[in-house]
Amino acid sequence: MSDSGRTAILNAARRAFSLRPYAAVTLRGIAAEAGVSAALIVKHFGGKEQLFDAVADFGPDVEMLLSAPRERLGRHLVETALLTRRAGAPPPLLRVIFGIAAGDERVLLTERFREQATARLAALMEGPEARLRAELVVAQFLGLSTVLSIHRDGATATGDVERIVALYAPGIQALIEGAAGGG
Amino acid sequence: MSDSGRTAILNAARRAFSLRPYAAVTLRGIAAEAGVSAALIVKHFGGKEQLFDAVADFGPDVEMLLSAPRERLGRHLVETALLTRRAGAPPPLLRVIFGIAAGDERVLLTERFREQATARLAALMEGPEARLRAELVVAQFLGLSTVLSIHRDGATATGDVERIVALYAPGIQALIEGAAGGG
Repeated sequence: MSDSGRTAILNAARRAFSLRPYAAVTLRGIAAEAGVSAALIVKHFGGKEQLFDAVADFGPDVEMLLSAPRERLGRHLVETALLTRRAGAPPPLLRVIFGIAAGDERVLLTERFREQATARLAALMEGPEARLRAELVVAQFLGLSTVLSIHRDGATATGDVERIVALYAPGIQALIEGAAGGG
Repeated sequence: MSDSGRTAILNAARRAFSLRPYAAVTLRGIAAEAGVSAALIVKHFGGKEQLFDAVADFGPDVEMLLSAPRERLGRHLVETALLTRRAGAPPPLLRVIFGIAAGDERVLLTERFREQATARLAALMEGPEARLRAELVVAQFLGLSTVLSIHRDGATATGDVERIVALYAPGIQALIEGAAGGG
C-alpha cells in the first residue's frame, strides 16, 4: 500500500474514532472515507481494534515529553510545545481534544489519554496530591498547545523561546515538585 | 418554533461552522442536520451570517470571565472553570477547540476567539508583552477547562476548590500582573 493510502486510512480512522463512540465505528465507513476497500484495511492493519490502537496511542508523545530529568521537566514541556509548533509538526497529545469535541465521554480516546498521559505523569511525581498536580500540569501543557493552534502567528508562536519558558515553565515546575500553593 | 427545534438548529450550525470553512457552510446543510427546513432557519435567525453570529459569539463568556477586579482575576478564572464544571454547564470559551479540531485555520471560530477573548484580555493588561501574557493566561484557562472535560470525575473536577485555586491561580495572576519570570 502506498504511504498516501496508509495516511488516508489513518486520518479517516482518527476522525471516525474521535467523532463517534467506538461501537458505532465501522471499518466500512473508514474505508469509504479513505477511498479504499475495507479488505485493504484488514490486510494492512488487522481489525478495528488494531486500527484504534494505531491512532489512539499517546505513548510515543508521552515518551518524548517525559524525556527530561524531573527537575527540568517544566522547561522541557514548554520548549517541546513551542519547538514542535515552529517545526510545523502535529502538537503532541493535542488530538485528545477530538475526543472532547465529539461531546461523548464514552469516547475511548480520552480514556486512553488518562491512562497513558495523566496517570503516567502522576506516577512520576513525588509528594501528596500527585493526581491533582498531574492533571494541572496536563492542563498547562494542553492549554499552551491549544493557544499555539488558535494563535498560529501570535506572540507565543513567534516570541523568544527563553522568555516564554521564563514566563510559563516555573508554574509547571512548581506543580511537578509539589511546591506550589504552599502545599 | 419549539425550544428543541431552536437548539437543534444552533447545534447543527455550531457543528457546521466548526468543521468547515465559512464559505462551505450552507443553510440547507444545517437545516438537513437539524431536521427542519432552510426557510424556517431564515425565518427565525435571518441569514447565514446571523446564524454564525449566534453560535460564534464568545462575548457573554468573556464578560463573565472578566467580571472581577484585575487583582483577583486569576482566582476568578479558576473558580469559574471549576464551578461551571460542577454545575454541569458548558465550559466557557472551550468551544473554540471545535475550530482547532477541524484543522482548518481559516475557520472563523478561532478568528472570533482571538478578537473577543485574547485581544480583550490583552487590552486590560498593563505593562510590556501584554499580548504574550494574554495568550498564556488563555492557555492556562483553556487547559484547565480541557482537563475538566477529559477527567470528568478526576482530582480537579472533584477536589477542594480553594486548594486548586492555591495551586493554579498564582501563575495566572502573575501573568496578568506582568510579574512572572522576573520580566
